[in-house]
Amino acid sequence: MAGKKNNTAIKNSPKHLLGIQNLSIIEAKEILEEAKEFIKLNRSDSKKLDILRGKTQINLFFEPSTRTQSSFDLAGKRLGADVMTMNMDNSALKKGETLIDTAMTLNAMHPDLIVIRHQDSGAPNLLSQKVNCAVINAGDGRREHPTQALLDALTIINRKGKIEGLKIAICGDILHSRVARSNIYLMNMLGAEVNVIAPKTLMPKSIDRMGVKPFTDMKKGLDGCDIVMMLRLQNERMQGSFLPSKREYYEFYGLTPEKLKFASKDALIMHPGPMNRGVEIDTKLADDINVSLVKEQVELGVAVRMACLKRYCK
Amino acid sequence: MAGKKNNTAIKNSPKHLLGIQNLSIIEAKEILEEAKEFIKLNRSDSKKLDILRGKTQINLFFEPSTRTQSSFDLAGKRLGADVMTMNMDNSALKKGETLIDTAMTLNAMHPDLIVIRHQDSGAPNLLSQKVNCAVINAGDGRREHPTQALLDALTIINRKGKIEGLKIAICGDILHSRVARSNIYLMNMLGAEVNVIAPKTLMPKSIDRMGVKPFTDMKKGLDGCDIVMMLRLQNERMQGSFLPSKREYYEFYGLTPEKLKFASKDALIMHPGPMNRGVEIDTKLADDINVSLVKEQVELGVAVRMACLKRYCK
Amino acid sequence: MAGKKNNTAIKNSPKHLLGIQNLSIIEAKEILEEAKEFIKLNRSDSKKLDILRGKTQINLFFEPSTRTQSSFDLAGKRLGADVMTMNMDNSALKKGETLIDTAMTLNAMHPDLIVIRHQDSGAPNLLSQKVNCAVINAGDGRREHPTQALLDALTIINRKGKIEGLKIAICGDILHSRVARSNIYLMNMLGAEVNVIAPKTLMPKSIDRMGVKPFTDMKKGLDGCDIVMMLRLQNERMQGSFLPSKREYYEFYGLTPEKLKFASKDALIMHPGPMNRGVEIDTKLADDINVSLVKEQVELGVAVRMACLKRYCK
Repeated sequence: MAGKKNNTAIKNSPKHLLGIQNLSIIEAKEILEEAKEFIKLNRSDSKKLDILRGKTQINLFFEPSTRTQSSFDLAGKRLGADVMTMNMDNSALKKGETLIDTAMTLNAMHPDLIVIRHQDSGAPNLLSQKVNCAVINAGDGRREHPTQALLDALTIINRKGKIEGLKIAICGDILHSRVARSNIYLMNMLGAEVNVIAPKTLMPKSIDRMGVKPFTDMKKGLDGCDIVMMLRLQNERMQGSFLPSKREYYEFYGLTPEKLKFASKDALIMHPGPMNRGVEIDTKLADDINVSLVKEQVELGVAVRMACLKRYCK
Repeated sequence: MAGKKNNTAIKNSPKHLLGIQNLSIIEAKEILEEAKEFIKLNRSDSKKLDILRGKTQINLFFEPSTRTQSSFDLAGKRLGADVMTMNMDNSALKKGETLIDTAMTLNAMHPDLIVIRHQDSGAPNLLSQKVNCAVINAGDGRREHPTQALLDALTIINRKGKIEGLKIAICGDILHSRVARSNIYLMNMLGAEVNVIAPKTLMPKSIDRMGVKPFTDMKKGLDGCDIVMMLRLQNERMQGSFLPSKREYYEFYGLTPEKLKFASKDALIMHPGPMNRGVEIDTKLADDINVSLVKEQVELGVAVRMACLKRYCK
Repeated sequence: MAGKKNNTAIKNSPKHLLGIQNLSIIEAKEILEEAKEFIKLNRSDSKKLDILRGKTQINLFFEPSTRTQSSFDLAGKRLGADVMTMNMDNSALKKGETLIDTAMTLNAMHPDLIVIRHQDSGAPNLLSQKVNCAVINAGDGRREHPTQALLDALTIINRKGKIEGLKIAICGDILHSRVARSNIYLMNMLGAEVNVIAPKTLMPKSIDRMGVKPFTDMKKGLDGCDIVMMLRLQNERMQGSFLPSKREYYEFYGLTPEKLKFASKDALIMHPGPMNRGVEIDTKLADDINVSLVKEQVELGVAVRMACLKRYCK
């Protein structure tokens, strides 16, 4: 009897947040609307609700992460969930267990939410087919990082009042960036015009099929943009065939006050963090509270994750 | 005054769960009965009680573990305890502290429960003599893993309705297995007939004194069994003098559909996990929901641990 | 709007616990008085309050620590806070983030308390200038460890009824010890007479300016002392130019029953832990419940930290 219930429950599975690609515009707007309430909560004296009391959230991180993991951890706790974080980079897989074995084990413990970050594109999708609970993608390989795009959208709306009609530049390692992919989907969906800027070696072929305009000349790509999203340059790309040198990258693709002048005069800067100062962004620009939204992105990230946890839980 | 209280409190120490060997049949049955309630709770919408609110549970893991640690962590949180998990494989013992020093330190912080996993047989017993709180053994060396045996018993009862009169085979590295030892004690106590199956090098001498029948021929050992418990083959045994090769082990002691035919026709398979597919068990059998109870074991493990935490706390 | 609030909030920043040096005698006494209530709570059946419900406490540990981290973790949980512990020795700084970047990120998540341990002297002060929440120093480089000194004071008061007029010896690696510095400030402030005992190589120059009497002869330094605080000898000092050998250190500066006779006849021993038995202290003395306050220090440490978390939170 017990086993039966276990085996059939997978049929009426709840919905998951696997990527922006699977999200409707209505769903995206509802999440953003709900998140606004949590911005207020997080700024208030008492940051605790009972919405997820009695629910179990498991954070399953196969890649280390300071900010995303912390953000989901606090989001769950502030909603009253029991939160368990598992850093899987070391212990679990030493014993040779597969992702699916781990998933089945955790699933049997009746979590209501699994938040997963994994180095392989598609891992959250695979997971979602094997478990009864909601799966939230916290970044998978080069594919998607949907909560990052949602928090970026919320930050823009919070500052500019809207996304529709804005011109947004995304600049950096477009080829390997899940942040870029999720943002391209979401900003397009919400009515922005998107430019992507990258050296040829870091620009995906047929990127124009994603509805964006590609630029290898940063100044041209920034022209008239309201928002400049800089991507983190992964250390592993800096050496090897993708890039000649950090210095040269900064010269051509690092955001400096001079290059920023090509954007709209009230342009704002975003970065998913952590920043490589002096590589993809000038350190003064990064800290300039008049143009940099970096801190606000982190702040609103907790709110967006609270909205997602609440929405997808059961 | 403070010190006095501290020093005398050890006299009226609470009881501990150190092993099945120390457990009476009444205690075992009470734990299993209590756990049934928690199975229901864990399958319900709201998995949270206040039974251990105000209590402090410390998980002290000297060996890494995904499933046992997660299981105890969620069990404690769902009962409302404040849970602190300490992975001691790295940080603490670097400074040269002994188990007892660590225990005395933690004890002074007034935990109500310490859950300990340790590579040395008897470590939980030593610990229990030094602290004022209840100690739950989560696996010690080659000695005992009592909550594993209890969850196995609960799983069997859940499926077969009883343990008394059943014929149970335990197969694998009997010599080094704390899971085997705890299960031999418990299944015997609850009225099952137990066969143990292992190659000679992995079979303890005078195992028959434990009230079981030893077999080196797996087919003979499985004859008529209702339950087949497969043990995990530790990687460190696979090379060296204990075993010729993985391939040969699988040939003689791996559970395959062919060998399973020698057991009772409605025989069910168990494994404490994580499984070495293709070593001790055929991968299809492992995933066959008609015969494999592996997921149910994990599920009921949380319930059994909740029952133990509740029982032994104060 | 959101950003504005964020940027101005730093002006009316709350107060921090950065060191005993910044603490007034009134503040110290209030903390100690408040802590007494928490001693009782921690010894009671139900160790849980709602004082910090809705508050977020982040433990940011750049150096590993068993007891201090556990102590702050339990202190926060027992007060009802949402506690998140981050071990920063590995993951976060791998990506090249600075302390300040990490701080700004965490600050944006609206914690109410950050407890920081860092290998650099002054790190908590720097942090406190960058964040909106209260910062509690859990040990910074060679500078201060204020909660250790406060728990030591509480332990002495608990046993001796007072600190004023007592004669206290602090013995060991005075030069590198933040525990020594914080205790010198606090014990002086509370009216004790302080002797410091160390070999010349481990005694700071012009230590007498701190209002203490320096001794290189342990027996003379212990003369008539009511409290003997032994410091932990760091392993890294044991080899190299500071000390000839462990053996010789024990001979001259290890606390033995013979040397203890030079102190007052009802002298009590303290140690911040973990102890190097046979190096700075005789193992029997360390465990002698008639003279050693080591366990009580750990116990009262949780109470002192609860008092600090409560006081500095908003």
